[in-house]
Amino acid sequence: MKIGILGYGNLGRGVEKAVAKNEDQKLVAVFTRRDPSSVKIDTPEARVLHADELENMKDEIDVLILCGGSATDLPGMTPKYAGMYNVIDSFDTHANIPTHFANVDEAAKKAGKVGVISCGWDPGMFSINRLYSHSVLPGGKDYTFWGRGVSQGHSDAIRRIEGVLDARQFTVPVPDAVERVRKGENPDLSTRDKHTRECFVVAEEGADLVRIENEIKTMPNYFADYDTTVTFISQEELNEKYSGLPHGGSVIYSGDTGENKHVIEYSLKLDSNPEFTGSVLAACARAAYRMNNEGMSGAKTMFDIAPAYLSPLSGDELRAHML
Amino acid sequence: MKIGILGYGNLGRGVEKAVAKNEDQKLVAVFTRRDPSSVKIDTPEARVLHADELENMKDEIDVLILCGGSATDLPGMTPKYAGMYNVIDSFDTHANIPTHFANVDEAAKKAGKVGVISCGWDPGMFSINRLYSHSVLPGGKDYTFWGRGVSQGHSDAIRRIEGVLDARQFTVPVPDAVERVRKGENPDLSTRDKHTRECFVVAEEGADLVRIENEIKTMPNYFADYDTTVTFISQEELNEKYSGLPHGGSVIYSGDTGENKHVIEYSLKLDSNPEFTGSVLAACARAAYRMNNEGMSGAKTMFDIAPAYLSPLSGDELRAHML
Repeated sequence: MKIGILGYGNLGRGVEKAVAKNEDQKLVAVFTRRDPSSVKIDTPEARVLHADELENMKDEIDVLILCGGSATDLPGMTPKYAGMYNVIDSFDTHANIPTHFANVDEAAKKAGKVGVISCGWDPGMFSINRLYSHSVLPGGKDYTFWGRGVSQGHSDAIRRIEGVLDARQFTVPVPDAVERVRKGENPDLSTRDKHTRECFVVAEEGADLVRIENEIKTMPNYFADYDTTVTFISQEELNEKYSGLPHGGSVIYSGDTGENKHVIEYSLKLDSNPEFTGSVLAACARAAYRMNNEGMSGAKTMFDIAPAYLSPLSGDELRAHML
Repeated sequence: MKIGILGYGNLGRGVEKAVAKNEDQKLVAVFTRRDPSSVKIDTPEARVLHADELENMKDEIDVLILCGGSATDLPGMTPKYAGMYNVIDSFDTHANIPTHFANVDEAAKKAGKVGVISCGWDPGMFSINRLYSHSVLPGGKDYTFWGRGVSQGHSDAIRRIEGVLDARQFTVPVPDAVERVRKGENPDLSTRDKHTRECFVVAEEGADLVRIENEIKTMPNYFADYDTTVTFISQEELNEKYSGLPHGGSVIYSGDTGENKHVIEYSLKLDSNPEFTGSVLAACARAAYRMNNEGMSGAKTMFDIAPAYLSPLSGDELRAHML
């Protein structure tokens, strides 16, 4: 199947790597809103084109993977291109998912295409695991822990503080909380009980470090509700020790069948968050293509995708090798 | 939806408990090949009927959950009843799955019913996790560890030895092997490297314990390829300490996106193997009913079931609460 990528940041590059590994997929072009000549990609046989060219590529692309941001790009982008292509996105602004789903659904149905939204690991693989667990053991409780890993949103928030040159923020689950959940204790945990936040900050020379630390720790939504540590380091140390984008976490579900308890845990340990997320998007592209070929259309999430659609193997092969 | 259960052993009782917890399901009857008056069930409003009555219950049951054994019951039972009902089974004789699937598919298609085979946790939830991981990160390696938990097949094998009154066999993953896999080392592991087997045996008075221990440890297929320990205990101690049927295990997948490694782990810690398995079967019954209502028919596995079909919640509710 012929794949297009719109947007070539960390996620777009992650999708490109994933498509290169998938023998049944071929990257046709990367589309960008920048000057295409300024964008160098890793796939020699693919082109770099301006996003405007998408108006004319309908016969050359089976699935378009949208690698824009949830805040400003995807709300307009996904419905727009679902009117022309099978599309995949990683929309993760939770409160706006119903509206986004409705908009994509309308456009995709009109065009006879499939649009899979909110793919990745959370939303995505973690969501699926919450769903399976609740369905099998109703009445239990799910806990999601994120990290240890880099939150790009929190790192950006620190960088916007005056006197900060660079920053990297790690979200870290509280080990004791994870252990209690794993034991099936079903504890009530506040935001502060579940995660701590570690900030590594490069400050301008002569900056007021006490003020910066205070601004971080009291920042509403981002840090105020957490136990936060701030460590000032040099740019060199930040580049050397914290240049990657590792992430991961666990969904732990604790339920029962009367007297007997059961604990289900799904966990990810990812060296690269955008490359893993890109890999999920590429698998969802396969599913979208096949579901559309079977006549389906409209907006979908990973909840609506039978697992077999994600695999390049046939039903016979899957039953023989993975069941 | 109206549920029937055929077979009332440990698994049948597990399904009964699960159906009682599912507000959208109602147990109509338990069917047995024994004398129905000898079977006491826990659901006051359900009946106990002879299996022969299934010929006359088509209008009263939406999904029939088959709780027979894979060796001799299900190969005939599932195709037979797929010709009359939507059916669910937990068929786990791996080598015979292709034949079983084909037989159920033919019968179910002819009758316009859905037959979901090989539901449970392995095959079942573990299989799904192998499939998701391979689809997202192609070229990686999956490892399945079972336990710590009771293997009923291995316990039965010990009980058949002369001089043995009772036995309970625990399958135990080798901690070092699990740790190496978790670290993403992708080790080559033999059968012996992955699991040990602990046997708790009650012997007849005066029995030759050395011979019994030797017969266990050298038993082909069951124990010869494992490091096995045999501990002789009294019937009282066995009843007191080892009467439950706990089980569980992990599917660990290790893959990469070029230089970056990723480890995915799905693990279960189950106080009761048959009650958890029964809970999966009940969720699959919900899916079969809904898929059949949408016009689908034929044999399915959990690979073919979009996760949303397993949940009693609507698409809107799922997107709002679990995505």
